[in-house]
Amino acid sequence: MRIARFSIDGNVAFGAVEGDKPDELVLDIIKGIPFTEFELSGTKVPLSKVRLLPPVLPNKVVAFGRNYAEHAKELGNEVPDAPFAFFKPSTAVTGPGDEIQYPPFSSELHHEAELAVVIGRMCREVPRERVQDVIFGYTCANDVTARDVQKREKQWARAKGFDTSCPLGPWVETDLDLTAISDGLTIQCTVNGGQRQLGRTSEMIHPIEDLIVNITEAMTLLPGDVILTGTPAGVGPLSVGDEVAVTIEGIGTLTNKVVKRG
Amino acid sequence: MRIARFSIDGNVAFGAVEGDKPDELVLDIIKGIPFTEFELSGTKVPLSKVRLLPPVLPNKVVAFGRNYAEHAKELGNEVPDAPFAFFKPSTAVTGPGDEIQYPPFSSELHHEAELAVVIGRMCREVPRERVQDVIFGYTCANDVTARDVQKREKQWARAKGFDTSCPLGPWVETDLDLTAISDGLTIQCTVNGGQRQLGRTSEMIHPIEDLIVNITEAMTLLPGDVILTGTPAGVGPLSVGDEVAVTIEGIGTLTNKVVKRG
Repeated sequence: MRIARFSIDGNVAFGAVEGDKPDELVLDIIKGIPFTEFELSGTKVPLSKVRLLPPVLPNKVVAFGRNYAEHAKELGNEVPDAPFAFFKPSTAVTGPGDEIQYPPFSSELHHEAELAVVIGRMCREVPRERVQDVIFGYTCANDVTARDVQKREKQWARAKGFDTSCPLGPWVETDLDLTAISDGLTIQCTVNGGQRQLGRTSEMIHPIEDLIVNITEAMTLLPGDVILTGTPAGVGPLSVGDEVAVTIEGIGTLTNKVVKRG
Repeated sequence: MRIARFSIDGNVAFGAVEGDKPDELVLDIIKGIPFTEFELSGTKVPLSKVRLLPPVLPNKVVAFGRNYAEHAKELGNEVPDAPFAFFKPSTAVTGPGDEIQYPPFSSELHHEAELAVVIGRMCREVPRERVQDVIFGYTCANDVTARDVQKREKQWARAKGFDTSCPLGPWVETDLDLTAISDGLTIQCTVNGGQRQLGRTSEMIHPIEDLIVNITEAMTLLPGDVILTGTPAGVGPLSVGDEVAVTIEGIGTLTNKVVKRG
């Protein structure tokens, strides 16, 4: 099931996305909150009539660095032996179709297409064999990075945590599982229609099981928290006016336009 | 005014702390939320009858590294030219009197006593001369750090973001201002009564004005967000069973006991 979060007539709701043709998608409005028991209301609204929002409002976004070998190498970095994580704050999250605001403190913004895992239940110290149980679903993410700032600053709070640096969407796909991810879904990033990044989720150095074991050794994850799983090779600059799209096989496409921060 | 957050009979409330003798403090329960207009109810309860909670529940905690020269040197690091920031997640926040849980993935936990700034209003791109306006008050913090993990992992999400790694309290003091901070308040950390850290807030390399200008260049701060301003020299190990106390002149004392994570 594809679960979207959206606003209509000033209200926020979740809905199950039905249909296959992009122009004819319909939302069946959900009664309750998707992370727990819920049912479909049967009340349907065309997706074209609503504004899609970030599909979740995470308490925190935990992102893993250098989890695709070719990407680590393209930036001149070694491939790390163990996963390492950083945070993107909830104030960085923005939705499908929203603007990425080019911040004035950077002059080198980069796209980083990533598979995002959405956590479904509160958890800590998750054993490897229970990882599947804590996952609600998957969405597309863009780990937008101020590369110049990242090079200058030892910790990446500003470089990767500025407002609108974490587009998520277009919805959460709950029908994928860890086997499909490790078998390999294509993950692609285009800028103005031209391909920039192309990889497969099977190329992750540390699979999702390891990432979730690693982070929950240290901390509690809450329903709606998001794990970013690293970006494949091909990262590159974004300019004001660009349209950047992250497409993941079996999920969908997250599109955002880059504008100057007003 | 000292504003505490506490639970009583299963309810959470804010209260103004009245009195001078530690054993005779009284809370005047606040009507409304302290970040906006509020008034004192006149209903009073002895502080000894309630459980103090973290004085705020931040959306994010932004912490600055190496902001006291002697501390940077004691860890063999250079003093950075510009501030650099990292995040501690809200799941790391714990209150005065709460336990610091020694996590199983570390064997070298360190205390780091810090002055914490509590943000009072939503803000971004704050000009230096307006910094005072966005500050609600100040409290004590302990930026508890898994030093061994910090040395191994390039980004510090796990080393400084594990559950209970961010004790805050005992309350927010709203009567201090930036002049008092730059003139210098003593900041002290004791373990089992023995002094470990002693510094003055006047020793900050980058004053609070610079820290808030720096972070809000990049991102929006929300009411209740917390800025940790760096730790003075003297950081050192904590062991299970230790009682660690952070005392800041003009604010109060934040005390926590270290236990093995259950």
